[in-house]
Amino acid sequence: MTYDRTRVAAWAAPASGAPLAPLTIERREVGANDVLIAIEYAGICHSDIHTVRGDWGPQPFPVVPGHEIVGIVAEVGADVTTHQVGDRVGVGCFVSSCRECVNCRKGDEQFCLNGGVGTYAATDRDGTTTQGGYSTHVVVDAHFVLSVPSGIDPAAAAPLLCAGITTYSPLKRWGAGPGKKVAIVGLGGLGHMGVKIAHAMGAEVTVLSQSLKKQEDALRLGADHYHATSDPTTFQALAGQFDLILSTVSASLDVNAYLRLLAVDGAYVNVGAPPQPFSVEAMALIYGRHSFAGSMIGGIAETQEMLDFCAEHRLGADIEVIDADRVNEAYERVLASDVRYRFVIDAATIG
Amino acid sequence: MTYDRTRVAAWAAPASGAPLAPLTIERREVGANDVLIAIEYAGICHSDIHTVRGDWGPQPFPVVPGHEIVGIVAEVGADVTTHQVGDRVGVGCFVSSCRECVNCRKGDEQFCLNGGVGTYAATDRDGTTTQGGYSTHVVVDAHFVLSVPSGIDPAAAAPLLCAGITTYSPLKRWGAGPGKKVAIVGLGGLGHMGVKIAHAMGAEVTVLSQSLKKQEDALRLGADHYHATSDPTTFQALAGQFDLILSTVSASLDVNAYLRLLAVDGAYVNVGAPPQPFSVEAMALIYGRHSFAGSMIGGIAETQEMLDFCAEHRLGADIEVIDADRVNEAYERVLASDVRYRFVIDAATIG
Repeated sequence: MTYDRTRVAAWAAPASGAPLAPLTIERREVGANDVLIAIEYAGICHSDIHTVRGDWGPQPFPVVPGHEIVGIVAEVGADVTTHQVGDRVGVGCFVSSCRECVNCRKGDEQFCLNGGVGTYAATDRDGTTTQGGYSTHVVVDAHFVLSVPSGIDPAAAAPLLCAGITTYSPLKRWGAGPGKKVAIVGLGGLGHMGVKIAHAMGAEVTVLSQSLKKQEDALRLGADHYHATSDPTTFQALAGQFDLILSTVSASLDVNAYLRLLAVDGAYVNVGAPPQPFSVEAMALIYGRHSFAGSMIGGIAETQEMLDFCAEHRLGADIEVIDADRVNEAYERVLASDVRYRFVIDAATIG
Repeated sequence: MTYDRTRVAAWAAPASGAPLAPLTIERREVGANDVLIAIEYAGICHSDIHTVRGDWGPQPFPVVPGHEIVGIVAEVGADVTTHQVGDRVGVGCFVSSCRECVNCRKGDEQFCLNGGVGTYAATDRDGTTTQGGYSTHVVVDAHFVLSVPSGIDPAAAAPLLCAGITTYSPLKRWGAGPGKKVAIVGLGGLGHMGVKIAHAMGAEVTVLSQSLKKQEDALRLGADHYHATSDPTTFQALAGQFDLILSTVSASLDVNAYLRLLAVDGAYVNVGAPPQPFSVEAMALIYGRHSFAGSMIGGIAETQEMLDFCAEHRLGADIEVIDADRVNEAYERVLASDVRYRFVIDAATIG
């Protein structure tokens, strides 16, 4: 099938809260530094749902979600040296940044001071609105295109571009590894990758989840221990235990209770974004020299490092591959926590 | 004057909120591992006032406050090898710990898991109540006695035992040094030591204080910049600037406003303990990978390191030396922030 940049098939939310439906969109011409990707798979991230349902404010509808993209390079611009036609590549949460500010120069493009460009529903540098990965093709600046190494199933690789890097980055930065006790709070799309990655890094991994429902899964994914947070004895039994607690939940937790599970110099790192502020007691930080920190995806170089790490350790997400016409049903199931652990759209079923 | 351990002169609070008055107390016999110190100087810490006024709950009155103690070794027990009669020594916020738990073994005796013993108003391992440094003599286990190097004025050294280590420890741990931008919030007893130490470590130091009142002082103490936090433009002008913000204030600040002054990977470290919890927005941490942390004094080895650092850099506190009979007046002036920057009692005026 010939690629026509003015007639690219996609699934889009036409308006806030409306079900997704097929839509034909236009992609830009492949510029000198661009890569055209024939999309194979696009993961469904909870933030896709927040965005199209208006939880995060007004959006430039129609919105084509999707920032967990894996595909094959179909064309490269004249100046592209990093990718070749036929390569398997990935695109994550952002597709541009200024590349000149102090954060971009340090490889933290996700914190670009001049405004990074999100993979969808964002204003691109040329003034157009970006459209995401629930589509057959996408055109992306080569700098923001990752190489997906052989050794990871391509469908299972898609969620690594968001859920993988979101957990890998803080686990690496806060020293998860041999001799370290790491707790993962919440066992969803992010949490299940957190368990796999922390285990592969060599840490002793504990899952803290509301109920015992997912205990068997957690142990299979690589957890050494599992505790239900609905059981109040959990918080006595584990006091002062952890070097690092990675919270992947977006609900408002009693963060002080979790801070007291940290050893001296321990850090509680939150990657969820509940709308209500946390209430943090000074003594829960002062006593034990604890840190309460946040982390947000990762830069391009670190995302590549994460993909290479996952390939080396044969890690991918646990996924359920769906046809595009089941995306609305999948959204409902995500909201009901009825997915283990990530939906991935087969892009061959789009259009 | 002969030392009589059953008749040691001190100043004590007889009851919660009552003025301090002279009191004769008893010190224990000098045990095999103990050091008898003839006290020269005792600093007045804001926490002394909190304690005797009952802000921190019921206390075992009468209470002799004082945990910033400098004096001369008058006698050592048979097994003491680290200190000799005639040495100038110091005692800080605690005088015992189990020395066996994981935290003690790592040198973090301030986080002793079996209960460290505070320098005053605490239950000692023998069941007696500890009495602090507003006194002529004190008997302390040699492990918890610091060496005060020559090169620091002994009166100016006293506040280092609390205000010095409370600021040195987080400045060191969070990497204050050349090329780093450090802000000190609040310019009181702790803050003025924070400025001196951060400057001596080679950091670029900014003071953030409510008004411009202390600007001249701050620059003299070693600050490179000074901004009033009552001026809202401060928070725009300094956004994203600091690698480390050390907050020394015990008031409830809008911590989110300060978190936004951090650069990527920056840390806001709080050593004050306001009674109300902080309200912390997830995005103020997530965006920029920020940390909100706490810190509490330091262990014995680190306190010695701090004293050696201060001697090397000729740092002491800015002090006002007073006679013991002015302690109640001094308390009022501390509460009114009318001290630059620490009162120190001349122990020769006690008894």
